[in-house]
Amino acid sequence: MFLIDNIDEIYRGSDEKKIEDGYIFIEDQKISEVGKTGDKAYRELKKEDKNYILISGENMLAIPGLINTHTHAGMNMLRGYADDMSLMDWLKNKIWPAESQLTPEDIRIGSRFAILEMLKNGITGFNDMYFAMDLVADEVKKSGIRAQLGYGLIEENDGQEGLEKSDDFIYRNHNAANGRLTCNIAPHSPYTCSSEYLKGTMEIADKYDINIHTHVAETEGEVQNLIDSEGRPPVEYLHSLGFFEQNVIAVHSVHLSDDEIEIFAEKDVSISHNPTSNAKLASGIAPVKKMLAEGINVTLGTDGAASNNRLDLISEARMASYLQKLETSNAATLNTRDLLAMMTENAAEALNWILLGKIKSGFRADIVLIDKKSSPEFYPDYDSLSNLLYASKLESVDHVFIDGEMIVKNGEVKTIDEKEVYREIHRRSEKLKND
Amino acid sequence: MFLIDNIDEIYRGSDEKKIEDGYIFIEDQKISEVGKTGDKAYRELKKEDKNYILISGENMLAIPGLINTHTHAGMNMLRGYADDMSLMDWLKNKIWPAESQLTPEDIRIGSRFAILEMLKNGITGFNDMYFAMDLVADEVKKSGIRAQLGYGLIEENDGQEGLEKSDDFIYRNHNAANGRLTCNIAPHSPYTCSSEYLKGTMEIADKYDINIHTHVAETEGEVQNLIDSEGRPPVEYLHSLGFFEQNVIAVHSVHLSDDEIEIFAEKDVSISHNPTSNAKLASGIAPVKKMLAEGINVTLGTDGAASNNRLDLISEARMASYLQKLETSNAATLNTRDLLAMMTENAAEALNWILLGKIKSGFRADIVLIDKKSSPEFYPDYDSLSNLLYASKLESVDHVFIDGEMIVKNGEVKTIDEKEVYREIHRRSEKLKND
Repeated sequence: MFLIDNIDEIYRGSDEKKIEDGYIFIEDQKISEVGKTGDKAYRELKKEDKNYILISGENMLAIPGLINTHTHAGMNMLRGYADDMSLMDWLKNKIWPAESQLTPEDIRIGSRFAILEMLKNGITGFNDMYFAMDLVADEVKKSGIRAQLGYGLIEENDGQEGLEKSDDFIYRNHNAANGRLTCNIAPHSPYTCSSEYLKGTMEIADKYDINIHTHVAETEGEVQNLIDSEGRPPVEYLHSLGFFEQNVIAVHSVHLSDDEIEIFAEKDVSISHNPTSNAKLASGIAPVKKMLAEGINVTLGTDGAASNNRLDLISEARMASYLQKLETSNAATLNTRDLLAMMTENAAEALNWILLGKIKSGFRADIVLIDKKSSPEFYPDYDSLSNLLYASKLESVDHVFIDGEMIVKNGEVKTIDEKEVYREIHRRSEKLKND
Repeated sequence: MFLIDNIDEIYRGSDEKKIEDGYIFIEDQKISEVGKTGDKAYRELKKEDKNYILISGENMLAIPGLINTHTHAGMNMLRGYADDMSLMDWLKNKIWPAESQLTPEDIRIGSRFAILEMLKNGITGFNDMYFAMDLVADEVKKSGIRAQLGYGLIEENDGQEGLEKSDDFIYRNHNAANGRLTCNIAPHSPYTCSSEYLKGTMEIADKYDINIHTHVAETEGEVQNLIDSEGRPPVEYLHSLGFFEQNVIAVHSVHLSDDEIEIFAEKDVSISHNPTSNAKLASGIAPVKKMLAEGINVTLGTDGAASNNRLDLISEARMASYLQKLETSNAATLNTRDLLAMMTENAAEALNWILLGKIKSGFRADIVLIDKKSSPEFYPDYDSLSNLLYASKLESVDHVFIDGEMIVKNGEVKTIDEKEVYREIHRRSEKLKND
């Protein structure tokens, strides 16, 4: 049990007024109370003989834990491995060859490193698609972070065995760790999986009632190739297969026709918008404004550390806002409340994580406290949400709670040995360089 | 005198190979030696009986001091004051009314705060246009930072008196503080100054042989207005006045015709590219790729903290790269070496700061040491320039030298009381809120 009191500001959710000078009471995995320190309920709570740990929220901003809806955590092993190259050149000539050298243990350590980085940036949950997922699941369990995991399936590499491996992984891990770990099925994309293979993934999604996580319409070239081979662009093509009868998280979705946006809206598809990766690889700017206008659930993802090159949702939100402002020639597009919603409640909805994404009584206790006093970017304090999103470096993440556990304390991740991770990453990257 | 040894990597300049395991010897205001710790020259230097302070460069990256070619330092008082609004709405209804409330002492403290923030981000020099410049000059002198300062002149507000005040300011301050402080003349823009007024500023530039610093072609509306009133777009119009016979730093330059880009190239105009401010205010993306192809000297600026909202050139470089990659649909556009040059040697050239912008024997000692071990973004270490530019938060600035003085030591600014600045900023911003 934790009582966080005298919190300078609590952002509960996009629709709700922020609470000033507030408190949050955490019991078991849940937020049992949230309110003002001046309230009667608070005084009564203090009178009760409860065995909580008291944490001062003075000068702190409390926000719901940030949720990263698309990454490849193991790619932290490849940050800065190759830059300033187009997506296909980068994938074929640098990333895929390097990935073929990665051992399962490299992916374990790369994922541990990614989890460390995310926790330090206030990310309490992530949606991952990569290899060696049993080891990633193990790292999720040990670190205390929340995750949804799926094997990234490329038909040519993984074949029928990949579907079986995925099924088995889901069977063993879905809803593990008290629900902190969930699974999905993750066909890489319509351009690396045939319609038959995609149908195989749909059956698994249906069997377990889980999400499908897939890349869609990242580049113009990929869209054109699908039009050439299947006679329609990716979203229309997937729709014709009945793909969107499942819960789908479509990643990137940069190049869409208006008809395809309508399909997304009708079928309640969630979008993981990855603006930095799309910019760095010159893929384009996704039509987020249009999607939001159609009522589509848009969330934010960092993508892997090789194409971003950081796992920082605040940077992602800032980039999303700036690119949409440019794209729509309207500086009012995507305000700070919209951005916070994309990183919290929208993301929770996309991942089917119920009772998550808000600081609300009865919700799971995934909470981030940010120190407003420690860095210049939080001064002056006209609007701390603006300072957080448009100015801060997030070096100010002070405490992180996940499922009611204190995972980060005074900026230090309690469940991962930071120095040891750096040593291991360095050792393994040196080996990779020399292979 | 300082000897920095065992520096992991030294980036000397864009054309030069980086030095691994290097040293830098600083005597008086200058870099007297730079080389490898294994060199004979180093061993001889160590033998001599010199009274230097030894600093370990282990695990450090050394880069030339970063130079911010456009800001309004005093606007740090207005960070987060108003966001998500278009430029003219934002200026007329929020920023200009707020600025009219600012006292000279507010601008002094705001500027001190901006200098603190810049130093913490590895910025060793800046080009500023604002009000109360005598107080800003005083802050520059005391803080040890390098600056070029000019009164921001709006004809309607400043009139003839503004020109006289500028002349007097330049007379008293140009090349002060051992050359660390230089001055320029800063007519705000062609849409706020008449041709006669602009000619007045040109005369002053000619008299002192100094730069002109001005906003040009930031928004489409401003370009259209000038076409309507003067029959030509801004650069053509300024050219017709003979404006570019002086050294000019043109800020923003987002909306240019090909002919205007050619004028810039012919007349050796330098550009201060402010990609974040242009994005946040939805002004557009400057044609940087084209400018570079024409051989134009392009540099980077943060603009003021109210429209960015941070004074961080690394973020600016990242944004410049990503926006140009998108704009040209080519992920190879603006690589890491180009970006470093824009922040260092190109900027020094723009400001007529000779013997600056490189780590080179005989150059002035403006140097930044960055700790590669302290944050996840520097791991793994395939390419530390990529990690610095595309991943780091710059929380890792460890030492900053300016003109041979150690201004930042172990991340702490020696010349400014950080906590006191925060207190003052808070107090003054509360007053501004309630006025």
